[in-house]
Amino acid sequence: MEKIPILKMGRFLLVTIQVDLYDRLALDLEANIIDAVTKHQAQGVMIDISAVSIVDSFMGRILSNIASMTRILDAETVVVGMQPAVAITLVELGLPLMGVYTALNVEKGMELLHSKIVPDEDADFDD
Amino acid sequence: MEKIPILKMGRFLLVTIQVDLYDRLALDLEANIIDAVTKHQAQGVMIDISAVSIVDSFMGRILSNIASMTRILDAETVVVGMQPAVAITLVELGLPLMGVYTALNVEKGMELLHSKIVPDEDADFDD
Repeated sequence: MEKIPILKMGRFLLVTIQVDLYDRLALDLEANIIDAVTKHQAQGVMIDISAVSIVDSFMGRILSNIASMTRILDAETVVVGMQPAVAITLVELGLPLMGVYTALNVEKGMELLHSKIVPDEDADFDD
Repeated sequence: MEKIPILKMGRFLLVTIQVDLYDRLALDLEANIIDAVTKHQAQGVMIDISAVSIVDSFMGRILSNIASMTRILDAETVVVGMQPAVAITLVELGLPLMGVYTALNVEKGMELLHSKIVPDEDADFDD
């Protein structure tokens, strides 16, 4: 079961991270998200990390990389559901997740993505 | 990281199962979903099992239980993203997931939930 599913929801993709992102899995995830953005012409990616209680510089870099890669493909990335302790750790590690949008939860992340994407903003889920 | 996150999206909850559901984790998931349905007054629960490649009678029963429990609380449960091999295994095991709605993917599951829920059907995600 070592594959993180990428769920397509309308124009957005949703990824929930529930397992430790060791090297291989993280690189696979990066590649799979980029493939999915291209395949589905997604305009936004939401990464839920509410189950992640430990974060390190590797994971911080992976999140930054995904955001940078999707931006080149014209999609925005929002990291949602960060636990307070993770935010503390990230700043203490000197990793303020530059260039990555964050939101408190999936719903707020969805609002943020909607606000970042200008055209046909009434479309959602059902389209 | 042994906690499966339950994401609230409008009137629905989304759960993606990415790890093996051993006894304790499965029972916790059951309890957490029921708690979340009550807390958020959710009208539907979607369980994505696209990352699940092996299913056994225990997992089949857990899915049936969750569907029955949420139904008592006036919420419907849809299992989405089942791999073909899992469908084959379930039927061969004699576990046709009685009483559980299924859909091919999250989007179709969302449509199914919308069709099952009669009032204020224009509400979604953003509400």
